Amino acid sequence: MLIQSSSAQLALDVVGVFVFALSGGLVAVKKRLDLFGVLVLACAAALGGGILRDVLLGDVPPVGISDWRLLTAAALGGLVTFAFHPAVERITRLVRILDAAGLGAFAVAGSLKAISVPGVPAVAAVIVGVVTAVGGGVVRDVLAGTVPEVLRRELYAVPATLGSVLVVAADRLGGLGGLVPWGAALLVFSVRLVAVHLDLNAPTQLRSGPHRQGTHGHRAL
Amino acid sequence: MLIQSSSAQLALDVVGVFVFALSGGLVAVKKRLDLFGVLVLACAAALGGGILRDVLLGDVPPVGISDWRLLTAAALGGLVTFAFHPAVERITRLVRILDAAGLGAFAVAGSLKAISVPGVPAVAAVIVGVVTAVGGGVVRDVLAGTVPEVLRRELYAVPATLGSVLVVAADRLGGLGGLVPWGAALLVFSVRLVAVHLDLNAPTQLRSGPHRQGTHGHRAL
Amino acid sequence: MLIQSSSAQLALDVVGVFVFALSGGLVAVKKRLDLFGVLVLACAAALGGGILRDVLLGDVPPVGISDWRLLTAAALGGLVTFAFHPAVERITRLVRILDAAGLGAFAVAGSLKAISVPGVPAVAAVIVGVVTAVGGGVVRDVLAGTVPEVLRRELYAVPATLGSVLVVAADRLGGLGGLVPWGAALLVFSVRLVAVHLDLNAPTQLRSGPHRQGTHGHRAL
Repeated sequence: MLIQSSSAQLALDVVGVFVFALSGGLVAVKKRLDLFGVLVLACAAALGGGILRDVLLGDVPPVGISDWRLLTAAALGGLVTFAFHPAVERITRLVRILDAAGLGAFAVAGSLKAISVPGVPAVAAVIVGVVTAVGGGVVRDVLAGTVPEVLRRELYAVPATLGSVLVVAADRLGGLGGLVPWGAALLVFSVRLVAVHLDLNAPTQLRSGPHRQGTHGHRAL
Repeated sequence: MLIQSSSAQLALDVVGVFVFALSGGLVAVKKRLDLFGVLVLACAAALGGGILRDVLLGDVPPVGISDWRLLTAAALGGLVTFAFHPAVERITRLVRILDAAGLGAFAVAGSLKAISVPGVPAVAAVIVGVVTAVGGGVVRDVLAGTVPEVLRRELYAVPATLGSVLVVAADRLGGLGGLVPWGAALLVFSVRLVAVHLDLNAPTQLRSGPHRQGTHGHRAL
Repeated sequence: MLIQSSSAQLALDVVGVFVFALSGGLVAVKKRLDLFGVLVLACAAALGGGILRDVLLGDVPPVGISDWRLLTAAALGGLVTFAFHPAVERITRLVRILDAAGLGAFAVAGSLKAISVPGVPAVAAVIVGVVTAVGGGVVRDVLAGTVPEVLRRELYAVPATLGSVLVVAADRLGGLGGLVPWGAALLVFSVRLVAVHLDLNAPTQLRSGPHRQGTHGHRAL
């Protein structure tokens, strides 16, 4: 699901898929889904963004269902969560850091793939990058029966948007050299980590009344 | 997202997208989503139907992510709702009238686009028209965590179906002149307004018991 | 939506679509949706898996919106449920048996179609088969506002996976004769019936606390 050239990049892909699978598996375990449910939510979280990207770009069958390495990484993430979920919950902090790395890798990979398809406008390439990065989490939460976390509380999509804009702008300006993707992924990673550390969220419209926390009380992750 | 020829038609498109974005933004504000959540729900409501249509017809990337005018109208609708939502709620009646106009424009535009693709049967063209008109609202409500409003209470899909059938039938009978699309859009608009005015709904199967209102109590819009 | 050659196979298709439509209609009636909601959930349950399959394989417009026979069978299933749902509920046992047959037919049909498309890897063909078989139920439950039943309680996806693996393995090994698809469908059917009879489920991760039944209490079907 991504930067498509070296084995370092494949490693990044596989790590990103694995980490996103952990997040899906954790949501599934909290919902007390059975083993198959855990595996499906893990795969949905890990591969959903890339599948949406490929459907939007017309590149079918999507790599998320046809590359056995990504599928294996996703299934492994689900199995690990199912078997060891108390341990996985204890390393939530590490999971969040790895998740931020996955976010950067997927935003960059999605926008890179979009600009490689002829006839895709810049704005569409940015959106495809963001969908690649956050789409898996949205599918995960919809299947789990909660309002997608990315829409509710976390400053999650903003860094992904920054990274995608950077990649697409560099491409349009002719400056998409070998380092720009890595710089963009690092930017996403850093901004996301700062947001987690400072507990930053996008602004919410204040309203009177006691229901400040929202009507759907579950925190998905 | 639509009647594809003159600037009047582009204006209609943009107005339809903007109005549907208001409806998405209102749902998001009621769910106390953050700014990004409001923008995403606004875009999902405004562009979701057209994106589903284009994916079903194989016309990718969908115009809903590649035409900056539609994206701008959708984002603007979301921002307006976020900033001024008490005012937007006060003009609910006007929003409903504009929404009925959007419904007509999208049903007609969807079925027109479907019949322009070679090899699409008549029945598929009708369904694509209905999906274009109501799909955005379905995506909006699924993301917001409620059962789609269109499935629950409002006589909403029926006028869209009437309009799509009229367009496709006229095409198959060789009578799809310049006025038919406008007549079909007007028909959808009128039937929908009458339904709103008389508070008409599609029939519901009565059951004994006190739960007549359904288990999901929220009224989304 | 399926084995694509004889009239016996068309009959199997139509029966499968009809039975899945009954399941969708029953969920809709229990949610007290209006007539249109019942029809939409019936069609989503009956045709959703095939539509997802065709979108993933790039075969658009999907047969689920373009073959009037399948559409008619789906709509008829919805109407029958709406009109006679107490009777349909009384024959739950028969519906479950027919549903198991539909599961087998759809898993086999999905994987057969996937292996007929050039360039689809074996693992993707298996996944497409499973998605064809269980996707409609997932769409049904997401629209109905519940966590998909297949993820929660029933040993439902496992037989579909077995059947898809058998078809794809036979194809790769050069042994996909005329009887293999029927044998695979029969295998799915039998395993599913045994699971229903013995009330088997996939393993669930036990956790302490009183909430053993899960947080979403509704049983969708």
